[in-house]
Amino acid sequence: MAGEPPLQLRVFDLNCWAIRYLSKRRQERVQLIGDKLRREGFDLALLQEVWSEQDYKDLKAKLAGCYPFSHYFQSGVIGSGLCVFSRFPILDTFLYQYSLNGYPYMLQHGDWFCGKSVGLVIIKISGIIFNVYVTHLHAEYCREKDAYLPHRLVQAWELAQFIRHTSKAADVVLLGGDLNMHPEDVGIRLLRGWTGLRDAFAEATRFEGCEDGCTLVPSNCFTVKAELLPFPLGIRIDYILYKAISSFTVKCEELKTTKGTAPGVDIPLSDHEAVMATLHIERQGQAVGAPLSSTEPRLVDVVTEARTEVELGLRAARRQRYSSGRMAVLALLLLLLQAAAVLGTLVGLGAGQPFPKLSFSLLAFLAIGILLLAAGLHVFHTMEVKMLQGTEQQMRMVLRALQEQPSHG
Amino acid sequence: MAGEPPLQLRVFDLNCWAIRYLSKRRQERVQLIGDKLRREGFDLALLQEVWSEQDYKDLKAKLAGCYPFSHYFQSGVIGSGLCVFSRFPILDTFLYQYSLNGYPYMLQHGDWFCGKSVGLVIIKISGIIFNVYVTHLHAEYCREKDAYLPHRLVQAWELAQFIRHTSKAADVVLLGGDLNMHPEDVGIRLLRGWTGLRDAFAEATRFEGCEDGCTLVPSNCFTVKAELLPFPLGIRIDYILYKAISSFTVKCEELKTTKGTAPGVDIPLSDHEAVMATLHIERQGQAVGAPLSSTEPRLVDVVTEARTEVELGLRAARRQRYSSGRMAVLALLLLLLQAAAVLGTLVGLGAGQPFPKLSFSLLAFLAIGILLLAAGLHVFHTMEVKMLQGTEQQMRMVLRALQEQPSHG
Repeated sequence: MAGEPPLQLRVFDLNCWAIRYLSKRRQERVQLIGDKLRREGFDLALLQEVWSEQDYKDLKAKLAGCYPFSHYFQSGVIGSGLCVFSRFPILDTFLYQYSLNGYPYMLQHGDWFCGKSVGLVIIKISGIIFNVYVTHLHAEYCREKDAYLPHRLVQAWELAQFIRHTSKAADVVLLGGDLNMHPEDVGIRLLRGWTGLRDAFAEATRFEGCEDGCTLVPSNCFTVKAELLPFPLGIRIDYILYKAISSFTVKCEELKTTKGTAPGVDIPLSDHEAVMATLHIERQGQAVGAPLSSTEPRLVDVVTEARTEVELGLRAARRQRYSSGRMAVLALLLLLLQAAAVLGTLVGLGAGQPFPKLSFSLLAFLAIGILLLAAGLHVFHTMEVKMLQGTEQQMRMVLRALQEQPSHG
Repeated sequence: MAGEPPLQLRVFDLNCWAIRYLSKRRQERVQLIGDKLRREGFDLALLQEVWSEQDYKDLKAKLAGCYPFSHYFQSGVIGSGLCVFSRFPILDTFLYQYSLNGYPYMLQHGDWFCGKSVGLVIIKISGIIFNVYVTHLHAEYCREKDAYLPHRLVQAWELAQFIRHTSKAADVVLLGGDLNMHPEDVGIRLLRGWTGLRDAFAEATRFEGCEDGCTLVPSNCFTVKAELLPFPLGIRIDYILYKAISSFTVKCEELKTTKGTAPGVDIPLSDHEAVMATLHIERQGQAVGAPLSSTEPRLVDVVTEARTEVELGLRAARRQRYSSGRMAVLALLLLLLQAAAVLGTLVGLGAGQPFPKLSFSLLAFLAIGILLLAAGLHVFHTMEVKMLQGTEQQMRMVLRALQEQPSHG
């Protein structure tokens, strides 16, 4: 088998930014995406933010010839936005929803309703089992004061755990998606360290595309320029990662990104640039174990760093749980006070003075509103505390295991 | 290795019914459960409905000597209720939350807030990798008109998929839990068929306990007698299931259940009976493939049956989504009508007649209430439709694969 020609796999990854009613020139762009996929004939296309199932169906109809296999992951209220098109049969699929997903009251970001998740499709090509993951992690809206960092770290951790636990029978693992993290961020280092995945951009023999491999660039007409002000070249937040598990090696021969608007058309495919990797997969004569010992000390550091961030988030979540609980109790007290006043009036006390009905009702209305809101927030922050706690515990367990290993091995 | 003595593993499984403020004599019973676990020295204890983390911590403190390793799965607002105590080190853990979990407006059942999920702990004993799963599926509240059946089927399917995808590197798979399904129910047949898990009760060489292995019996003083009226012996809804993946065999030598109140104490451990299995695990000279071909035709039937039920649920969910949407639109129309009336009064039309302020406000209040409720239900049923659809699609994909296999192989 070692003499076989290497398998070449061309992978396309794009955050399509196809939100009905919200994304600009959505239908035209979905057309363009379909055209590009059909024209270039990739082996695999991993798409995010295809929120409208109709867009998926249109793409599916258009691509039936060159990508006969596809899957759309259902999840949340409006779907997961994740889908995969493949030249090769999809053997099985599985979806995992992240447990934390930003704050429900940050409605302008809308992420909370989107059921952020990671989808797995299993594909077999020439006898090689590929576990292909596609995901979209929670966005960062303000790099300086990133309230979402703990949530994104929990997601990165859950993603890493999901990949580790589900990829044990795979020969090759591929992950494509908008991870919403810069290459040096702790979440990316955690994900890469804990799964052993390698970054196609960093490993590529040839590269062609936006400078530094950026996928959110100021020259794209749909990006929000203000958000990219601190990064004149743009940022790299969309990735193709890979690793070989058993007796295979994977190499990234070429990595490309789109560069805003293509010649001959007037708009880019999306506000993100597409990432396109050409991978070479080769069967090895013997199993190659990952050089774990050399990377382990760094892994301990990364997990420690991530754990510190999660702990900070946990403290903030506890404070918010406390404040929302206190607010709910205060609103309840106000309501009780009002009820007592009404009762007092009914039994004749203070009947002498007229009762200011309108302002009284308004106050009651306000108190009920605050009570409901504060109670809802309290429930949410309780859940947040639980999930951050659970992740922190898991990280602690992993750290203990990592620190014990050298003495055992 | 084939000459090694078989490994004996004693597993304890119990739905502890330890809900703070709700479960009768909870603290005494948690004490009794701890006593039993300490006295009998099992290898593994899989507990459900330990909703209070304090109860878990008390058990952990009490059992530190005989079960030095344990894990409590965090999830949802009040936790997952799932925990594991083990004599052997826990290498890793992972939690999967089911996507559907009953109806939010069936509050008396409370299941919706509980974050029903399946927990995985990985344990290594004498070089054998055990993937141990503990879960608690949604309860059935009325067998004749079981509105939850589609939800439970989605859970059974997700449980089976989770086990399949995460157990590929395991030597032995164990599943313990309150599956809330009778042995012949389609959900159990689906789970067993699709994972290859075997029922310890059915396979046991020796059995001792409640008749037919029932785990919810009328003689238990905490069970609701009315619910068990159609089943004079009780029902069997708590299970220990197992299978060997690689070159191992697992046999259930003995299965026991508790029988209500133990001699010398005045209350049983829980409203459920505990299930206790003694398993023998032996290394085989050669890998034993599961006799898939003989079970496959039955698997196709089971998946078809399950898919039909999910489709029925999908139709019902679509109807409910439609009704709740219509209700929301009607409430919105009423509000708009009222707003128009108010505007009309303000600009002087109909100023002749006095305006019935109180009833008008009450009506507006009612309309707002109905609007919010109906909108919430609409969102929920939309999510329900998505999840049922997703499961139905997955089942269809599996059926296609199962039906194609014979011609390929």
